[in-house]
Amino acid sequence: MFPKNTWYVACTPDEIDDKPLGRTICNEQIVFFRAEEGKVAAVEDFCPHRGAPLSLGFVRDGQLVCGYHGLEMGCDGKCSSMPGQRVRGFPSIRAYPVVERHGFIWVWTGDAALADPNDIPELHWANDPDWAYGGGLYHIKCDYRLMIDNLMDLTHETYVHASSIGQPEIEEAAPETKVDGDEVITSRYMENIPAPPFWQAALRGNNLADDVPVDRWQVCRFTPPSHVLIEVGVAHAGKGGYDAPPEFKASSIVVDFITPETDTSIWYFWGMARNFNPQDQALTDRIREGQGTIFAEDLDMLESQQRNLLKYPDRQLLKLNIDGGGVQARRIIDRLLKEEATPSSSAAAAS
Amino acid sequence: MFPKNTWYVACTPDEIDDKPLGRTICNEQIVFFRAEEGKVAAVEDFCPHRGAPLSLGFVRDGQLVCGYHGLEMGCDGKCSSMPGQRVRGFPSIRAYPVVERHGFIWVWTGDAALADPNDIPELHWANDPDWAYGGGLYHIKCDYRLMIDNLMDLTHETYVHASSIGQPEIEEAAPETKVDGDEVITSRYMENIPAPPFWQAALRGNNLADDVPVDRWQVCRFTPPSHVLIEVGVAHAGKGGYDAPPEFKASSIVVDFITPETDTSIWYFWGMARNFNPQDQALTDRIREGQGTIFAEDLDMLESQQRNLLKYPDRQLLKLNIDGGGVQARRIIDRLLKEEATPSSSAAAAS
Amino acid sequence: MFPKNTWYVACTPDEIDDKPLGRTICNEQIVFFRAEEGKVAAVEDFCPHRGAPLSLGFVRDGQLVCGYHGLEMGCDGKCSSMPGQRVRGFPSIRAYPVVERHGFIWVWTGDAALADPNDIPELHWANDPDWAYGGGLYHIKCDYRLMIDNLMDLTHETYVHASSIGQPEIEEAAPETKVDGDEVITSRYMENIPAPPFWQAALRGNNLADDVPVDRWQVCRFTPPSHVLIEVGVAHAGKGGYDAPPEFKASSIVVDFITPETDTSIWYFWGMARNFNPQDQALTDRIREGQGTIFAEDLDMLESQQRNLLKYPDRQLLKLNIDGGGVQARRIIDRLLKEEATPSSSAAAAS
Repeated sequence: MFPKNTWYVACTPDEIDDKPLGRTICNEQIVFFRAEEGKVAAVEDFCPHRGAPLSLGFVRDGQLVCGYHGLEMGCDGKCSSMPGQRVRGFPSIRAYPVVERHGFIWVWTGDAALADPNDIPELHWANDPDWAYGGGLYHIKCDYRLMIDNLMDLTHETYVHASSIGQPEIEEAAPETKVDGDEVITSRYMENIPAPPFWQAALRGNNLADDVPVDRWQVCRFTPPSHVLIEVGVAHAGKGGYDAPPEFKASSIVVDFITPETDTSIWYFWGMARNFNPQDQALTDRIREGQGTIFAEDLDMLESQQRNLLKYPDRQLLKLNIDGGGVQARRIIDRLLKEEATPSSSAAAAS
Repeated sequence: MFPKNTWYVACTPDEIDDKPLGRTICNEQIVFFRAEEGKVAAVEDFCPHRGAPLSLGFVRDGQLVCGYHGLEMGCDGKCSSMPGQRVRGFPSIRAYPVVERHGFIWVWTGDAALADPNDIPELHWANDPDWAYGGGLYHIKCDYRLMIDNLMDLTHETYVHASSIGQPEIEEAAPETKVDGDEVITSRYMENIPAPPFWQAALRGNNLADDVPVDRWQVCRFTPPSHVLIEVGVAHAGKGGYDAPPEFKASSIVVDFITPETDTSIWYFWGMARNFNPQDQALTDRIREGQGTIFAEDLDMLESQQRNLLKYPDRQLLKLNIDGGGVQARRIIDRLLKEEATPSSSAAAAS
Repeated sequence: MFPKNTWYVACTPDEIDDKPLGRTICNEQIVFFRAEEGKVAAVEDFCPHRGAPLSLGFVRDGQLVCGYHGLEMGCDGKCSSMPGQRVRGFPSIRAYPVVERHGFIWVWTGDAALADPNDIPELHWANDPDWAYGGGLYHIKCDYRLMIDNLMDLTHETYVHASSIGQPEIEEAAPETKVDGDEVITSRYMENIPAPPFWQAALRGNNLADDVPVDRWQVCRFTPPSHVLIEVGVAHAGKGGYDAPPEFKASSIVVDFITPETDTSIWYFWGMARNFNPQDQALTDRIREGQGTIFAEDLDMLESQQRNLLKYPDRQLLKLNIDGGGVQARRIIDRLLKEEATPSSSAAAAS
């Protein structure tokens, strides 16, 4: 139950630099590889000869060569050649629209006729030398919407991430949720509070005192199908908070691309973009390591929650004010799912 | 297929001393914790907020705090508070009757209106300074009735435990099975035989010669739903056997509480209570270690037997004289199951 | 979907020398053991007493003793005795026709009335001092027919075994497939080519120059149900190839007995028989080690292919000239399956 006529992050470029990558996305088994001139390509991970996964093969001259008997597959899903064979009549396999942009490989698993690269979200920080980015990938056995819920309700930080970014002041500050078209924004502002350990370190990383009261903010932005970008930061208290000048604050964007693998598992691309000391690679590495440790704390909780929900499928969960972001996001997702299920709409969109 | 209107051992007190314990019992996912004043509590392991397992949380001031977003659950299954929320209208979760007694936590997964702590079996040795107890817990993937069969037919000792408590004289002595109300007693007496290694060690532990002929006995007592207490011992031959005075014998009670986890898995609480040298903790530890090693020998056999029976569900097994204890125990269990399936009977019992 | 009225290799003699062996063959759980006078026996792996697997027991005086309660099973599936019991009325379990021959244990899982040891294939090299044999066993999670396909189309060597026996000249030489009764022969001859590493080593093992051009051959012979014997070798170029005198060539027989465990898993008995330096045990060991490494390269491919085919059960695979051997083999298998499904035919055969 995920929209398919949309762009998902499939992998990062380094994952296909040396060899093809087999990865299931939206229940489709896909192989990603670099075709002619390094252009990224994505086709079904199924050799039309004998059904072997093409991802066990290799790339030669921009063609994906099956590692079993040498069939050569082109980026269009058509067999280009095979030793000792005439391949003209060979059946094709499905090719998927795929684009490399902003440091990610994006794939479209729905109706290819509707795929428009202009719909890939604009990530201003991705191509700006004033910004630095570091991130990673986790595989989690849960419905992608549980991860959206997680990220749109940051009160969980107080419990799941108590030793790093959590603090009781989070749950004391009620969040506000707004819907703007297909975007859902849940914001929380905390004033004159102590900075938790992760943000103390970030203040130091920006050469700022870490032992003074701060104003702290969290602005979670959901856009379909399952992207959550969160503006987070702290400023020395009373300097303007979110709007404080750069010399008084440490801020960044938490980046979350959530890609369904199956109905109950995801590829979770997480990272952080920052615009202070962007050239400091050691700082980037340190932040990534810290964030990786923190985000790993969510895994057990999410997978346990998923198992519980599968066991009790009929229970109604609560929808509190803190759940507003997730609730609104699911409402948008439900509308998109309904649109996809209506043949006329996609036909209309395609025409 | 297990009785539910009955008390099962859920865990030992040490398992919930530091943190909540999530454990499935009779197919119910339950969290056990210490509520106000250290009193044991048991509720569904499902947070009514977002379905996370409460067992991943912690206890604060006698309340079970969900480790995801901080909902506080009371021992009655009612949400007592949640940061920033009014909880009056929150749905409750199921609470289970639970009692700490005789060194175990007992839970009732059936109709709570029928739960009477007086039905918890009396274990005289548990609270008597003249007795010592040591035991452990194994998880085994088999129907709980296979474990009952195992314990009511000790001829298996000759094969499964050949190097410790087994000896050919066991199968040479025919057992006798009696039914007394809901109790099944299978007894076996062996006279003037050598003591096997485990009992040689027990004789030494009681400062008795270990190289003389002994009389040996095994009196297995099943009571529903799945408790098997076995009087075992040896006495120097000719001194009265089972009835010999204490200075001529080493005897003890093998304690077996078998708690269904699912239809084909159990929590097996095993132990031994003895009334010789009860203050000798080193002896208690040594006996527990020996018993643990011996009882672990049953695991592979029971799990293999279970897999075989699942593969051949229609085969009739033999019911020999040695199987009498298990056969009679199953007859009582079947009657209880039938009574539970008849609504009027439990209503009558409740009235 | 495998023929059952046929002989499969069940195990090698060393696997039952010390203790019984439980092994599933054609979905039947069977225990193999050495009965009276060392004669091999095979019965259901299910004790008629309580359903325990007999393979957890031991052999005593030619009887298979159940490791749970000591029931003694004879090679005919009839209980021969049990301590303290009269066993006359005990139900029997199924006994399987089983024969030790040519260094293997052969089992018949179909209609026992049709089992004729004369149908076990003749393996001339197995009992000839001029020949040496070494081999091993792999468990692979794939349909047995995928392994037949693999062995009847050796173009995969160029890809899967690129560093040992693969070379591009294989796929440049078109194979020829013939059917002779129930035998399928796929042959390939390559002339004046370099020897790949495995064959260079074999030439050295036969005291021949390894750096000169060779003629190479592969003659794959399938016989039902799933035996593939492959004549392979190289000769110094121009000396007659396949027919060259022994002093110019290194040749051997690749031995493949493929025994279905379940519908999607196999016991794969692989080995190599050679008639040069047959007394050189170190050479036998070296060849077995090399072959074991090479054949292990197929495992991941076959299991991945199987998973892909289960996921896409309706896809038609290609049947190219290189697939001719596998296609013809499947045709014979399909005919045998059809014959087995027709009651009258087996009745007629039995009469």
